[in-house]
Amino acid sequence: MSMPEKVLERPGYDVTLKYIYDRMNNLFPDVEIAYKTNKGVFHYKYSDFTYRVQNIANALNSLGISQLDKVATLDWNTHWHYELYFSVPLMGSVLHPVNIRLSPNELLYVFNTAEDKMLVTHADFLQLAEVIASKIKSIKSVIVLDTDSVPQKVGGVPAYHYEDLIKEHKGKYEFPILSEDRPAFMGFTSGTTGMPKGVYHSHKAMVLHAMSSALHFASFGQTRISSSDVIMHVVPMYHVYSWGLPFTTSLLGQKQVYPGRFNTKVYLDLIKAEKVTYFAGVPTILYMLLTDPDSDKYDLNNLLFINGGSAIPEGLAYLASKRGIKVVVGYGLTETAPVLTLALPPARYYGKMNDNELFKIQLRTGYPIPLVDLRVVDTNMNEVPKDGKTIGEIVVRSPWVSPEYYKDPEKTEKAWANGWFHTGDLAVWYEDGSILIMDRDKDVIKSGGEWISSLRLEDAISQHPGVSLVAVIAAKHEKWVERPVALIVPKKGWEDKINTEEINNFLIQNFVNKGIMSKWWLPEKVIVVNEIPLSSTGKANKRILREQFGEVLIKNQ
Amino acid sequence: MSMPEKVLERPGYDVTLKYIYDRMNNLFPDVEIAYKTNKGVFHYKYSDFTYRVQNIANALNSLGISQLDKVATLDWNTHWHYELYFSVPLMGSVLHPVNIRLSPNELLYVFNTAEDKMLVTHADFLQLAEVIASKIKSIKSVIVLDTDSVPQKVGGVPAYHYEDLIKEHKGKYEFPILSEDRPAFMGFTSGTTGMPKGVYHSHKAMVLHAMSSALHFASFGQTRISSSDVIMHVVPMYHVYSWGLPFTTSLLGQKQVYPGRFNTKVYLDLIKAEKVTYFAGVPTILYMLLTDPDSDKYDLNNLLFINGGSAIPEGLAYLASKRGIKVVVGYGLTETAPVLTLALPPARYYGKMNDNELFKIQLRTGYPIPLVDLRVVDTNMNEVPKDGKTIGEIVVRSPWVSPEYYKDPEKTEKAWANGWFHTGDLAVWYEDGSILIMDRDKDVIKSGGEWISSLRLEDAISQHPGVSLVAVIAAKHEKWVERPVALIVPKKGWEDKINTEEINNFLIQNFVNKGIMSKWWLPEKVIVVNEIPLSSTGKANKRILREQFGEVLIKNQ
Repeated sequence: MSMPEKVLERPGYDVTLKYIYDRMNNLFPDVEIAYKTNKGVFHYKYSDFTYRVQNIANALNSLGISQLDKVATLDWNTHWHYELYFSVPLMGSVLHPVNIRLSPNELLYVFNTAEDKMLVTHADFLQLAEVIASKIKSIKSVIVLDTDSVPQKVGGVPAYHYEDLIKEHKGKYEFPILSEDRPAFMGFTSGTTGMPKGVYHSHKAMVLHAMSSALHFASFGQTRISSSDVIMHVVPMYHVYSWGLPFTTSLLGQKQVYPGRFNTKVYLDLIKAEKVTYFAGVPTILYMLLTDPDSDKYDLNNLLFINGGSAIPEGLAYLASKRGIKVVVGYGLTETAPVLTLALPPARYYGKMNDNELFKIQLRTGYPIPLVDLRVVDTNMNEVPKDGKTIGEIVVRSPWVSPEYYKDPEKTEKAWANGWFHTGDLAVWYEDGSILIMDRDKDVIKSGGEWISSLRLEDAISQHPGVSLVAVIAAKHEKWVERPVALIVPKKGWEDKINTEEINNFLIQNFVNKGIMSKWWLPEKVIVVNEIPLSSTGKANKRILREQFGEVLIKNQ
Repeated sequence: MSMPEKVLERPGYDVTLKYIYDRMNNLFPDVEIAYKTNKGVFHYKYSDFTYRVQNIANALNSLGISQLDKVATLDWNTHWHYELYFSVPLMGSVLHPVNIRLSPNELLYVFNTAEDKMLVTHADFLQLAEVIASKIKSIKSVIVLDTDSVPQKVGGVPAYHYEDLIKEHKGKYEFPILSEDRPAFMGFTSGTTGMPKGVYHSHKAMVLHAMSSALHFASFGQTRISSSDVIMHVVPMYHVYSWGLPFTTSLLGQKQVYPGRFNTKVYLDLIKAEKVTYFAGVPTILYMLLTDPDSDKYDLNNLLFINGGSAIPEGLAYLASKRGIKVVVGYGLTETAPVLTLALPPARYYGKMNDNELFKIQLRTGYPIPLVDLRVVDTNMNEVPKDGKTIGEIVVRSPWVSPEYYKDPEKTEKAWANGWFHTGDLAVWYEDGSILIMDRDKDVIKSGGEWISSLRLEDAISQHPGVSLVAVIAAKHEKWVERPVALIVPKKGWEDKINTEEINNFLIQNFVNKGIMSKWWLPEKVIVVNEIPLSSTGKANKRILREQFGEVLIKNQ
């Protein structure tokens, strides 16, 4: 008898979401959850929540949901959605929150790929649910939320009222002992560069992601969250599991607010009434809350905003800081569940650095959180120097990286090549381990063997007084393979003045001549457009732009 | 192709100590480590540390240490010990820090059971190492620390100088990709109730334990630790891996102090010179630092002390608070790596409870940290009511519980019965999930089917003005199975006055008549003794006391 090669965990000792669930029950029974429905704002406690999670598990069980079955949702940020975040994975089944912003074609693709057995839909999406339930044969039942009247059938399959089910299935549910490797959640990438790609994450991935995000936030910087903070869940629960925040906050025992469908006034009222101390979201959300005509009537001082999804414009960050809002940047991908980095300047820097130096660090993409092994590498997988200048691709390893693209071995092989997950994001690396993203995904321009950052170029062009919106894409080029092309929506009165010469003169004067930008980066062509199409996540949809303008340099030659 | 039953982690994505090591290297290269040797106090940086970890791995490799081999240590809290905490597990081997306070017989038992291949010893233990190396045939080489002269052989096997090895083996070491289930550490229980029992912990266990302790501390209460704190490692590194603190602090990137052999003056000087903000230890250590004749010359204001190993006496807690030291209680066992609970009143209680209520919570055994499923159960494994009164046994599940007692299937079966690890500790459970230990292990007295808390009884008896030291044990009893017997060391002048009648009258008047204590708890017999033997961890050695006095009631009948 000698030391075994593997320490075998006993059943029930594995890292599953049940640990978070039991912790809520044992340590935080009295902590409050506020939620908004069509009927108003209500409150219940963690102990009520955990009981209802058992009730709905009883109901799902009676409707035939068993281990590894997938349950899809079409829902806002509701307490019902939150209840399903626990009940479905704790049963051993898989929750699949569906992005309601996808196009009809993409939605059908997603449901067909996932083969969901049940659809839970908010009443607001009943029409959409009709179509899906009638077309997707795997769906055997539909549950409807937030309504008084549920039809007997939706899209030809039996339909049920969530609250009726709860009433009919009171009582305890003995959640099974699961392996930590059991899939818990399924999601799809937002598909800016093709059809959405399916990913899935185990219990272990979800729990460790929540622990690591919480730990980094609570210990690393000077801005910290703790068990006494109050969160409003603003990140859509159909976007990468609301960035894992429902689990992070449950683990910490924080008071939570589920605000339902986005509405500026409702959200501002909830922040005030429920004494919210922080929320996360994309820059657009913050922009809307700050520019609402009534916004100034609300005291937003000391609120913390965790920015993700895309880089926060400096002007917006400044607007927020004037209101006393602290902004912290996060970065991640659907494949990575999502958090990889958070841009909190380390607490030890305070007192040693001046405000300007700290501010610059704050605008970086951030520091990897615990259990994220992140490297910035060249095309040969060698680490680039940590000099803040040399651009490389971000590759990662972490226990919460999806193991593959579901049913897509070809794309899987490419993205997970050489033992690392390739984010497709280009960044520079600093000596203290922080990174700054220079470009995202296929936005990248590789021209004559050199990287050009379309993000930086957009940033520079947007400073021209006549530019309202700008997107820079890589256009195909016979000699240089790719060259940058700028698509610009001009401000009123500038329509006739914006052209390639005007923009490039501006860039030369303000950036090239100052040594900030290589002359090589100047757009090959500027095209005035009426609008820039957006993807489902509010970013410029470069796929569409490339389809439209990607060959403009070739055609013109 | 459908959803797999298990999400298969890719190689390198598993939770191993390498994540902490790489994090130190990438995020905290400039953070300082101070260490004391026989030659003085020195400093180096995390980047120096990680490089030396590779150097010594090269050396161990060249000395024949390979995967799953065990490396034993006899060492104080030195930076060398810390280097081995990483290099040995990262190589895929197992570190086995040996408790230098064990008796010679116990030491031989421990080495024989572990079958260590190498022994690393501080020069202070060279004589002991001679004996061990000569008797334990598995040991093939010895490395000696903190000396200028290393003999060619120790106990007949080749001996090496640690610093010479480092010099001779400069250069990188490619640590292998390991499974998270790979054993990383081996330890032995302190053996107060029999021979020490071997336990072992995987990479995953060590990392999750560090993350969870740090997260709970950083987020749960009002007293928080962060990346800018400075730790002095006081908990012996041969006691349950120094309670995991070397990993917790490395993960957080805190400045660390390795103070070497315990010496009150040296430790106080280091606290001052290195600006230490917290340390952990048993109450005795705190007592010695506070009662040193020079102690008052040191400013200890705002220091945090994490108390473990045994309950902190109220008088000592008061003494500490007068010096401005905050005390937080922790609880755990060798089997559990060790932390299970921390007694931080939840931050949300502040402002809602008064100081007295908060103080009472602070003196409890604490709240389970994340990923610890802790229950207080009766003998039928039913949870006892959370009423703060009903006593039950603490049972736990957690990813960092050892899977077994090494080479001891019989004791394993008993301790891990019914799917839970049985701590043998008796506690009450409160509505907010906190617990308070009433008795430990075999100290418990079960008399006529009822539990009697020897801890509480000792506490009551110690308040008699003539009592210097007291230990209560369970003595065998024909009718009631067990009855309490009190062993008392009287204060000077009280030798002739302490007896069963005197003590029981005192207890009746002050406790029984006031309803604080059942009359059933009164000691069956009081015995005056000259001294109370202590175990290797400074607790009353009840095993010896039971051997000596356990049958005193039977013999007397």
